[in-house]
Amino acid sequence: MTDPQLTHLRADGSAHMVDVSAKPVTARRAVAQAVLVTRPEVVAAVLTGELPKGEAVGTARIAGIMAAKQTSTLIPLCHPLPITKVAVDITGADDRLTVLATVATNGVTGVEMEALTAATVAALTLYDMIKAVDKLAEITGVKVLEKQGGKSGDWVRS
Amino acid sequence: MTDPQLTHLRADGSAHMVDVSAKPVTARRAVAQAVLVTRPEVVAAVLTGELPKGEAVGTARIAGIMAAKQTSTLIPLCHPLPITKVAVDITGADDRLTVLATVATNGVTGVEMEALTAATVAALTLYDMIKAVDKLAEITGVKVLEKQGGKSGDWVRS
Amino acid sequence: MTDPQLTHLRADGSAHMVDVSAKPVTARRAVAQAVLVTRPEVVAAVLTGELPKGEAVGTARIAGIMAAKQTSTLIPLCHPLPITKVAVDITGADDRLTVLATVATNGVTGVEMEALTAATVAALTLYDMIKAVDKLAEITGVKVLEKQGGKSGDWVRS
Amino acid sequence: MTDPQLTHLRADGSAHMVDVSAKPVTARRAVAQAVLVTRPEVVAAVLTGELPKGEAVGTARIAGIMAAKQTSTLIPLCHPLPITKVAVDITGADDRLTVLATVATNGVTGVEMEALTAATVAALTLYDMIKAVDKLAEITGVKVLEKQGGKSGDWVRS
Amino acid sequence: MTDPQLTHLRADGSAHMVDVSAKPVTARRAVAQAVLVTRPEVVAAVLTGELPKGEAVGTARIAGIMAAKQTSTLIPLCHPLPITKVAVDITGADDRLTVLATVATNGVTGVEMEALTAATVAALTLYDMIKAVDKLAEITGVKVLEKQGGKSGDWVRS
Amino acid sequence: MTDPQLTHLRADGSAHMVDVSAKPVTARRAVAQAVLVTRPEVVAAVLTGELPKGEAVGTARIAGIMAAKQTSTLIPLCHPLPITKVAVDITGADDRLTVLATVATNGVTGVEMEALTAATVAALTLYDMIKAVDKLAEITGVKVLEKQGGKSGDWVRS
Repeated sequence: MTDPQLTHLRADGSAHMVDVSAKPVTARRAVAQAVLVTRPEVVAAVLTGELPKGEAVGTARIAGIMAAKQTSTLIPLCHPLPITKVAVDITGADDRLTVLATVATNGVTGVEMEALTAATVAALTLYDMIKAVDKLAEITGVKVLEKQGGKSGDWVRS
Repeated sequence: MTDPQLTHLRADGSAHMVDVSAKPVTARRAVAQAVLVTRPEVVAAVLTGELPKGEAVGTARIAGIMAAKQTSTLIPLCHPLPITKVAVDITGADDRLTVLATVATNGVTGVEMEALTAATVAALTLYDMIKAVDKLAEITGVKVLEKQGGKSGDWVRS
Repeated sequence: MTDPQLTHLRADGSAHMVDVSAKPVTARRAVAQAVLVTRPEVVAAVLTGELPKGEAVGTARIAGIMAAKQTSTLIPLCHPLPITKVAVDITGADDRLTVLATVATNGVTGVEMEALTAATVAALTLYDMIKAVDKLAEITGVKVLEKQGGKSGDWVRS
Repeated sequence: MTDPQLTHLRADGSAHMVDVSAKPVTARRAVAQAVLVTRPEVVAAVLTGELPKGEAVGTARIAGIMAAKQTSTLIPLCHPLPITKVAVDITGADDRLTVLATVATNGVTGVEMEALTAATVAALTLYDMIKAVDKLAEITGVKVLEKQGGKSGDWVRS
Repeated sequence: MTDPQLTHLRADGSAHMVDVSAKPVTARRAVAQAVLVTRPEVVAAVLTGELPKGEAVGTARIAGIMAAKQTSTLIPLCHPLPITKVAVDITGADDRLTVLATVATNGVTGVEMEALTAATVAALTLYDMIKAVDKLAEITGVKVLEKQGGKSGDWVRS
Repeated sequence: MTDPQLTHLRADGSAHMVDVSAKPVTARRAVAQAVLVTRPEVVAAVLTGELPKGEAVGTARIAGIMAAKQTSTLIPLCHPLPITKVAVDITGADDRLTVLATVATNGVTGVEMEALTAATVAALTLYDMIKAVDKLAEITGVKVLEKQGGKSGDWVRS
């Protein structure tokens, strides 16, 4: 079996932002997830953010949407992309809050990193709001769930 | 049992950046972790970043250090803090890379969010570099491991 | 009567960030306002953001809070300040939405610009959300309402 | 009459960055205004910025141009756009300074928010420079004056 | 001989971001250089960054790559461009470290400023790392070496 | 002679932001320079920026002042500092424009990097404005001229 080659490293091992000049612009989309594990009563307190008296969920959603636009600023070797859509959905059940981020672009590279960044920053924002009531909270399950467009085509995590 | 109160929400449920004007400046420190789960041969490819021919680990480290300084820009209700130290350590074993981020400040609030942001962005940067060879990779175990300073005193996750 | 001297311009007329090295750190606070004038039914549509089915108000609030932290990045001659509190309140009546932003710091300069920036960006965010239904909307009444701390002491707009 | 629908809110009231993936790229342009009301002698002091000994006007102009490029960072639900032109014109008469910002792009959405952001930040920068000599100054008349391109076609405020 | 006209200034001398709306998108590329002059033993200490025990060179490289993406944020009249490639190469000999930055885009303006910004920030990052051991270090030779694409065609500095 | 040790690298060669938590806050100041070499008639065209019909010098000055505030965002291992003063002076003679940047803080580390960043970005902004009339321009002489405060005391380049 061949060793995996990291495309972000050149032959001499140095990092670079790979040349995507010749890649075609196509419609791309990715969905990613992050899960915040806490206690059931904390989940309940956060979800009142969907009721008249709470903005916790909306605050995390906006943080995720804004973070998607900062992806190429945060991740050193990411290309800047003209993002055309971001949606962040947050649901809760039992002891966990699940963040789903969907990002689309018409671009030369995929938007998995944008979706992962949106989901992660939304989860960190939820963490920030609950850390005073649960210092044992943990973010887990940060992963890409599906992706469309580009050379590798459509893909759904099985 | 009383319901947990989210301090970032006011009585009417609206979000705010809480007033810390009267809190004393103290030396604070936090350590947080993020774990990237992938395949053993991908871990090996990344860790060559510590050998002459690879900068994967160093790139993720710098991304984490720079992200710590952007925490209050990313997390809406975080206070800006004068960070006095950031260290990001990345180790690998079996199928996973573990990021440990240590942040210190002399400030009025703690630096857990800064440590979590550093660890998470370093892990996302590693993810970015391996996503072409492992689209099933996942970030997990994002949590605070220890914290010193402030009213609540020293704490180590047990 | 003497002509007013602009402190941000030196004797030769060139702009500079004035030296505040010798000024004492004191507790400071400012409240500023911005008013978005639109149509009554648009105000009603926005204010449902305080009901279960709408996040318009919360989104503008978060935008204002985050903008307060970007003030010294946006306004060329502003000094960076360690903001200790930001609150953004949005109310509606008749044909207008009123944004009130309150900012506090322990710093060497006042936080009027931070409060004005928060109020203005919150109002621009509301504008962004209603522009498809009212292209004639207008932001007006952007001003400081009160200010505490610093050499000039407490002041309330009469 | 139907209630106005805010396009930035989904059916459940949550905010999102709307999907513009399928919209065509067209040449777009917008002009927006912001007016700073102060005292005549302060207007005179600022306008010497167009004379050899003053950079007040130029400083505000550059702040506005740079802010136009930060619009999608400041306004949560704005799409990033490849801005192709920004001009900021500042004139004074009587007790007021008028900022006109013109922005163009070849993009899928309009540039009203970019023009409004440029005009507003330029006006805030003027405010910052005069606040020591007029704490009663006020920004008013922030509105779009004209807009070209896109599905809704050309429009001039009457 | 005619006086040179600065295109970034309008007829009245005011600065603007020039209108490039009508310019065609073409493949463009630029290479720029910056040279850090220090002492031979400092060059040796930095270059161990290419050995297992040092990350100085990699840190400067990442700083340069990330700075290229911030060019239009830093340089007031620069247009934002969709960068498609950044490579930063750092070599040392005798008493100097030479940074070469290569940037590509498919855009309406050239990427000389992006390449210069990448080279300069990489050199400043090297300076930051050596300033404790050489306060006399100096950056020199910041210039464009070659450029391809656009109306003016290919050019190599002779 | 002992080899110079780079303080930004730990014993294992990895980069970190060094811990300055225990360092005292003192008044600090630094002056740095950057020189743009071009042709005499281009220098003349730029310097009309100090006349009624040109804003070239003022634009570069503002770019330098704003860049000083971005130093810790650009240079990975720089600590964020509360800058209390920035002045950028630009003079021309013969074939060159000289930028002098002065930065002050009350902080735990020096402001050489802030002064160098201000001088360099101002010079790059001048470069941007003249590149259409002189593609052979070059930035040189980027160095610290003097520095006050901190453990190492006052220092003037001889």
